[in-house]
Amino acid sequence: MTEQLEIIKDGNVISGRRLAKIVKAEVKSEVEKLKEQFNEPIRLATFLVGENPASKLYVSMKHKACAEVGIDSINIELPEDITEKELYDRIMELNNDPSVHGILVQLPLPDHINEHRIIRAIKPEKDVDGFHPFNVYAIYTKDPRGIPPATPAGVIRMIKAVNEPIEGKRAVIVNRSIIVGKPLALLLLNENATVTICHSRTRNLPEITRQADILITGIGRRKSKEDPYYITADMVKEGAIVIDVASPYGDVDFKNVKPKAKYITPVPGGVGPMTVAMLLTNVVKAYKIQKGIE
Amino acid sequence: MTEQLEIIKDGNVISGRRLAKIVKAEVKSEVEKLKEQFNEPIRLATFLVGENPASKLYVSMKHKACAEVGIDSINIELPEDITEKELYDRIMELNNDPSVHGILVQLPLPDHINEHRIIRAIKPEKDVDGFHPFNVYAIYTKDPRGIPPATPAGVIRMIKAVNEPIEGKRAVIVNRSIIVGKPLALLLLNENATVTICHSRTRNLPEITRQADILITGIGRRKSKEDPYYITADMVKEGAIVIDVASPYGDVDFKNVKPKAKYITPVPGGVGPMTVAMLLTNVVKAYKIQKGIE
Repeated sequence: MTEQLEIIKDGNVISGRRLAKIVKAEVKSEVEKLKEQFNEPIRLATFLVGENPASKLYVSMKHKACAEVGIDSINIELPEDITEKELYDRIMELNNDPSVHGILVQLPLPDHINEHRIIRAIKPEKDVDGFHPFNVYAIYTKDPRGIPPATPAGVIRMIKAVNEPIEGKRAVIVNRSIIVGKPLALLLLNENATVTICHSRTRNLPEITRQADILITGIGRRKSKEDPYYITADMVKEGAIVIDVASPYGDVDFKNVKPKAKYITPVPGGVGPMTVAMLLTNVVKAYKIQKGIE
Repeated sequence: MTEQLEIIKDGNVISGRRLAKIVKAEVKSEVEKLKEQFNEPIRLATFLVGENPASKLYVSMKHKACAEVGIDSINIELPEDITEKELYDRIMELNNDPSVHGILVQLPLPDHINEHRIIRAIKPEKDVDGFHPFNVYAIYTKDPRGIPPATPAGVIRMIKAVNEPIEGKRAVIVNRSIIVGKPLALLLLNENATVTICHSRTRNLPEITRQADILITGIGRRKSKEDPYYITADMVKEGAIVIDVASPYGDVDFKNVKPKAKYITPVPGGVGPMTVAMLLTNVVKAYKIQKGIE
């Protein structure tokens, strides 16, 4: 309940920034204990291929977050024209390096590299993005030892942080990517929600979103503040929890939906900071799996 | 259109039995061509652990179906008290045996054996049940080279056989198992349906099922013909496609739902025969993947 009070601001707005701070403090204290127990650094390695400015920014945010909680991190920058085989071999090296506990390949990769093959190359217990087939299978089968993708895990954590039950609720997800929509559907099913997945081919979207007790949206097609919203107040049920995964511009008409919603997340300062915080949680989980204590 | 006419009986009933015959004829002709091309038998191996009578029946049906289409099959019967390690080793032998192209472990396994570990042991390209994490990941990522589970693949085939478009339709699935509900949700998403997954904790099920253009149900809790139906006419939208995956007693009040439905499947003679037929399709697909021609 203390957590709930700290993370709610302005009435019904769930602050991802504040909750991320709480999560980071938890991770920091766990990292300290683990370092004492095993007397070694906990280390994340990231791969950054090419010169994509957004990717560079995301990677640097992840390293900064690691530093805040006492996780060691190294970044391996590779040229745009690296072959799939070379990248694969570099991943294999770190798979076999016991001093590296988490491996993350920043996506997207250049077109000549098959992302699925690269994701499959990462040792599942070091796959802190939770994208490896074995980790997908774990959430598919409700195996608690799997590593979940950070964004969906962050969404679940936000709902739980305000003590909202998920069981039996109608959850509607407007996104079907393998980063957000599909894993989130699996996680919400594991929490016993009734789950609907919508996407660009969905007809009568407003009719479906209006049924949602929990509405999670990640359309992400707004290119500026002036673009029209995808989720307007008439599409939201009174008393719904509304979580906006889109970035950098939210899908939701925040100002007009806020009065109707039980809880709502802002953009920025909502799901974004949670994604980074949950990555840190995943590094700790990966470490514990490798040490046989999870 | 010829196929459609052949498989519809009694107005709007999709006969799984008739469609299964068509699928088997296709498989048979493909098997003949492949045998000519590669000059060797195509072989399925099944593992049957213990004395479960239902499992024995299912395995024998699968072998009979193989024989019908010219696929070679062997059954390996193992005692109830076999260790996980022993079963694992037997699977490994067949993984490495180039004369075996499909491997199927009949479920359920005895409690002392971890099913997920056994499923993971099967080489993905020989996993004709489509349960391996790599095959789950394939339908998750819409990779056409994956092997889909037979029952959901059969459901999709039945809908397509009557030339019903799936794109944009509201599909409601009442089942969230990894054999039926979850893979079916992924396959229907790949066909651009808007998908809702319901289960035992779903509230107001009738309200949700009434929205379905395509209703697929697999509750399967009726123990006799006298037990009340789970899906009654008031729960079905006029003009819906209704597919009943439950067995041996269907969920659906067939007699009263039939007049409302655009199409409906019977139990028995609906999804059941399709499941066996799609397994044969999977054996051929597995064979072609192993030969590098798919």
